Amino acid sequence: MIQVRSFAAGKWHFGDKGSIVLVDAVNGEPVAEVDSSGLDTGAMLRYARDTGGPAIRRLTFHQRALVLKELAGYLLQRKEEYYALSTHTGATRLDSWIDIDGGFGTLFTYSSKARRELPNDTVLIDGPTEQISKRGSFVGRHIFVSRRGAAVQINAFNFPVWGMLEKFAPAFLAGMATIVKPATVSSYVAHRVAEDMIRSGLLPEGSLQLIAGSTGDLLERLTLEDSVAFTGSRSTGLALKQLPSIQENSVPFTMEADSMNSSILGEDVRATDEEFALFIEEIANEMTTKAGQRCTAIRRVFVPGPLVPELLTRLQARLQKIAVGDPRIEGIKMGPLVSLAQRTEVRERVAELAGSCERIDVKTEIRIDGPDKGAFQTPTLLYARRPFDNAAVHEIEAFGPVTTVMGYRGTEELVALVKLGGGSLVSSIFTNNDSIARTIALGIAPYHGRLMIVNRRCAAESTGHGSPLPHLVHGGPGRAGGGEELGGMRSVLHFMQRTALQGSPTTLGAVYREYTRGGEVREEEKHPFKKYLEELQIGDSLLTHRRTITEGDISNFAGVSGDFFYAHVDELAARESMFGRRVAHGYFVLSASAGLFVFPGPGPVIANYGLENLRFVKPVFAGDTLQVRLTCKAIRPKEGEDNGIVEWDVVVRNQDGDEVALYTVLTLVKKLPRVEQPATI
Amino acid sequence: MIQVRSFAAGKWHFGDKGSIVLVDAVNGEPVAEVDSSGLDTGAMLRYARDTGGPAIRRLTFHQRALVLKELAGYLLQRKEEYYALSTHTGATRLDSWIDIDGGFGTLFTYSSKARRELPNDTVLIDGPTEQISKRGSFVGRHIFVSRRGAAVQINAFNFPVWGMLEKFAPAFLAGMATIVKPATVSSYVAHRVAEDMIRSGLLPEGSLQLIAGSTGDLLERLTLEDSVAFTGSRSTGLALKQLPSIQENSVPFTMEADSMNSSILGEDVRATDEEFALFIEEIANEMTTKAGQRCTAIRRVFVPGPLVPELLTRLQARLQKIAVGDPRIEGIKMGPLVSLAQRTEVRERVAELAGSCERIDVKTEIRIDGPDKGAFQTPTLLYARRPFDNAAVHEIEAFGPVTTVMGYRGTEELVALVKLGGGSLVSSIFTNNDSIARTIALGIAPYHGRLMIVNRRCAAESTGHGSPLPHLVHGGPGRAGGGEELGGMRSVLHFMQRTALQGSPTTLGAVYREYTRGGEVREEEKHPFKKYLEELQIGDSLLTHRRTITEGDISNFAGVSGDFFYAHVDELAARESMFGRRVAHGYFVLSASAGLFVFPGPGPVIANYGLENLRFVKPVFAGDTLQVRLTCKAIRPKEGEDNGIVEWDVVVRNQDGDEVALYTVLTLVKKLPRVEQPATI
Repeated sequence: MIQVRSFAAGKWHFGDKGSIVLVDAVNGEPVAEVDSSGLDTGAMLRYARDTGGPAIRRLTFHQRALVLKELAGYLLQRKEEYYALSTHTGATRLDSWIDIDGGFGTLFTYSSKARRELPNDTVLIDGPTEQISKRGSFVGRHIFVSRRGAAVQINAFNFPVWGMLEKFAPAFLAGMATIVKPATVSSYVAHRVAEDMIRSGLLPEGSLQLIAGSTGDLLERLTLEDSVAFTGSRSTGLALKQLPSIQENSVPFTMEADSMNSSILGEDVRATDEEFALFIEEIANEMTTKAGQRCTAIRRVFVPGPLVPELLTRLQARLQKIAVGDPRIEGIKMGPLVSLAQRTEVRERVAELAGSCERIDVKTEIRIDGPDKGAFQTPTLLYARRPFDNAAVHEIEAFGPVTTVMGYRGTEELVALVKLGGGSLVSSIFTNNDSIARTIALGIAPYHGRLMIVNRRCAAESTGHGSPLPHLVHGGPGRAGGGEELGGMRSVLHFMQRTALQGSPTTLGAVYREYTRGGEVREEEKHPFKKYLEELQIGDSLLTHRRTITEGDISNFAGVSGDFFYAHVDELAARESMFGRRVAHGYFVLSASAGLFVFPGPGPVIANYGLENLRFVKPVFAGDTLQVRLTCKAIRPKEGEDNGIVEWDVVVRNQDGDEVALYTVLTLVKKLPRVEQPATI
Repeated sequence: MIQVRSFAAGKWHFGDKGSIVLVDAVNGEPVAEVDSSGLDTGAMLRYARDTGGPAIRRLTFHQRALVLKELAGYLLQRKEEYYALSTHTGATRLDSWIDIDGGFGTLFTYSSKARRELPNDTVLIDGPTEQISKRGSFVGRHIFVSRRGAAVQINAFNFPVWGMLEKFAPAFLAGMATIVKPATVSSYVAHRVAEDMIRSGLLPEGSLQLIAGSTGDLLERLTLEDSVAFTGSRSTGLALKQLPSIQENSVPFTMEADSMNSSILGEDVRATDEEFALFIEEIANEMTTKAGQRCTAIRRVFVPGPLVPELLTRLQARLQKIAVGDPRIEGIKMGPLVSLAQRTEVRERVAELAGSCERIDVKTEIRIDGPDKGAFQTPTLLYARRPFDNAAVHEIEAFGPVTTVMGYRGTEELVALVKLGGGSLVSSIFTNNDSIARTIALGIAPYHGRLMIVNRRCAAESTGHGSPLPHLVHGGPGRAGGGEELGGMRSVLHFMQRTALQGSPTTLGAVYREYTRGGEVREEEKHPFKKYLEELQIGDSLLTHRRTITEGDISNFAGVSGDFFYAHVDELAARESMFGRRVAHGYFVLSASAGLFVFPGPGPVIANYGLENLRFVKPVFAGDTLQVRLTCKAIRPKEGEDNGIVEWDVVVRNQDGDEVALYTVLTLVKKLPRVEQPATI
């Protein structure tokens, strides 16, 4: 029997007050035991705050991201062990794949997105500089910094691996140390993975602690620096959220609770359309994957009234094809619920729903070797004839393979019905009419964290109604908890503090290490393009020589580019234009500016790979004389590579000192060549 | 005596259960009476949800912004009436200016920022398209849509006008109808302004309702669509936040509570430095503005140990110069507290603080005509000798002209002391050393919503420690409530729902009206540049003729631009570069692309005013043949002008079909010429 130990303040712990035994969902055999008695939660919090957090924050965002990538690779090599354990929870191979490979995929995605979207730094700038003074000597800007406390993460039983990793990844990237508490019933799976995460040696000390069992008084001890991310039942979540420690210290509490998610068939769809078949398939899949034990599962199915009979018949037939049984048997598509207690719970909820619904019989035989000691629950299909008079179908969730079908008439009625769910994680819309898609999507978006719109054009690549993706927000308003998880870097920000800064542009630039226009610059004899990445400093600046733009330049540029737009080459039409006469091409101003600021010889600047925020703010006429100020704005070394990104602020002015063009140039710049050290003998 | 009526479901209401009389803060004379008994809060909520919200949401963001601008202009003309009323609350002219002109300024700023930063639409796109499928037929993207409920706004007594308008503006922009509840004691000021807002006829029906007095059971009736923004005392805020209606429905609750804000003198500053004088001035101002009744006032002053005596002496002298008295008397700089009850409260808190602090005597004479019936409280300066052993000074807030000075030694100690405040709205840092500024700012940022860094270079234009700005986040973690108000469009988003969308690029584009690369395009004979704004459609696209790039082109472009970067013109050096041989200038690819897609004759496209997200993704060599796909990406008509912005997606490919450059071109495009209608006779 596996001893599911906790990992607290750097040590493995197993209590001595008498353990709880966890059993296999199929055959009832003991699998593991849990005992968290005697945990020192105060020490755990101190360890997270004083050891783990500081250790993570010594790494930049990119370094943290690379740790996640290595970690995912390390765990991936060991995945068969996790699959074996996962089977005890009743999971089929596919269910486990969603949990285990899905979890590792989340780490990989967070790693690559963080390296693309966050700077290689520890402070994150949020939004542009705010002009809050006339002369610009006092400006404003926002930054995100790491919160300094512990990130407590409480997970549901259904996805012990994915649930742990999808919360751990953003918290780790944000610079917070995690204390994870998996649901007890499947904790042996999370425990095994957490053990490997710690054993890998890849994580800075204190990054991850684990509570197998009860959290004891952990949550009562939280202070303003800590945070909680919770996935699970609404009632538990609400109780925790209302603890005085959490309310009084405004501890961020991200709650993601199961909800009355829906799937909708558009009124344009006929029974012979591809979308009808896709709809049936999606409902059947979502009802039976993980035996319907998903926060995102489809609990309510909305169908145009006339199509209800056809839908019920075909869905019933489809569900009857699904092989239910012991997931160890070849060909089984749906396993048991996680436990007998969970089955009792589901059956009670089904009984409540059945009071006001018609039950469509789904004939299924349970395939199992030996006597049935498992928590099997066959797919349960309900039909509610009067959905507006039936509060239960919008409120009571049976957390298993159970869904209720309802008819609707018109978008207004549909939106009203969907809204009765009180806020959901996700809804899917099946339609091949983009105008209907828009009307339904915008009508129900206020009540959802995610909407999936499926038609024949995208179905083959659709990721599925029930699958949260690391790129997209997971969470929902109202009953779904009001929280936001995942969503790319959005979820990292939920673990950080946003702070507005005010001060001189030079001072603020020194705080977040980015040159702000209006700040002081540094001019040297050496051209900034001659400096290696490490030699450059924010504010290094070049004021170029000048160039007078002539009629000949404009004509030549038209010839070379082939751009004969009337405003540049047709004096008669140009006179009638907003400019009043011929103007130089914007692209010529850009090209001539490069001619002014580029150092032509070989050097550390390898390439100009892009441009941002270009604005032509004043026209340039023949006779105007241009001069460029080029200033090093940001320096972003690439982790483990021989170069980095340098952003240059460019201001082009005319003879009156007026700005004519403003932009940011993106270049690749080499790091200093590494001197090869002779091997010591 | 003013009858402070409520405005409920389109009607003015005054109760009959016996009114509360509000008195002048200086002379105790009755000013107004309040009675909210008999309010039908259910009808108010229905009116906000079913009448006000839909009416606002029929306007685009830009149209809503223009309403705010007109409204600010309308109120500005009537401001002297508000100033007269404000004096009854004990406010000096300057105090009233912060409240009244500050409120109107907030409307103006929100109006102009919204028109610059939000689309002229009702749906807001959040972030880029997420690639979640291999072939790109299924993509993800986030949008923000309006929440459909009532925005309940509860305000503090100190800034009845600003407090109302700074919450109303973002809620209105977001598309939510407001129910505002000003603090009763100064409600006659807010009431007068609200009356004019409604009377102006500028607001869509139902946009604004007012509760003067008690909210009754309003908050108990809130559901998932509603929201609460609260400013006031921590204890009241906490009680409201924990109502079952709010917790169970995950009603967004933005709390902004008074906090133990601090001001810090850097260790680099000497007593003779300009920053020392600026520091003294800021503390004196912040202590006495609005008689210290500001959520953002400086409650704790941190000074390098050796400078404490000098600081106390000079601050004492400065405070003694402040004229306290009836704000109607010329030259008075500080008026009374808002009420005698408030003074009792402040004096009790001062007594608690004085137990562990030394009190520095500030000699002040109160100037008043007639007997002193006012709620006057003279500036109170305290000194805490052992700040680490003194919990009271970090926890007990006297909401009046009261501050405590403390010494510190080193940044680490400073950060620990600041943190004892448990999370604050704002801290200010006075230093002329940018490295010290960075260390302190990043050290204390996790505990603050805003940090102001002052030195001699920016002091003249500084907006002041205590002043929240519409551009910057106002709020703070922990004790300060954990909320975010203001912060430009960030606060508008807090009144909206973020929803992830998944589907085909074409379908998603139809939902949020923006072309997504990979979506279907529409090709016609007519060049898209020949279409007026109203004739253009998202997805209108042009695949251009082609152009082979020659050695001559590259040479000519180098000559015209003056850009002789070795990678373009020096074959020997180019061979050693990452490209292996000479490449065309990126700016030439850009220019030649324009030559391919621009329609040269006069037409609706007036100007190319900028470019976004340019990436050169593959080098172009002599011999390569380029072709461009130009697609209408977004159409943004300008409200009340004869043109709009059109964004064009540009993809440049070579002969192999590989993308070589990707970007978005920004153009101004004319609306259809208006046909002058002959006047009907």
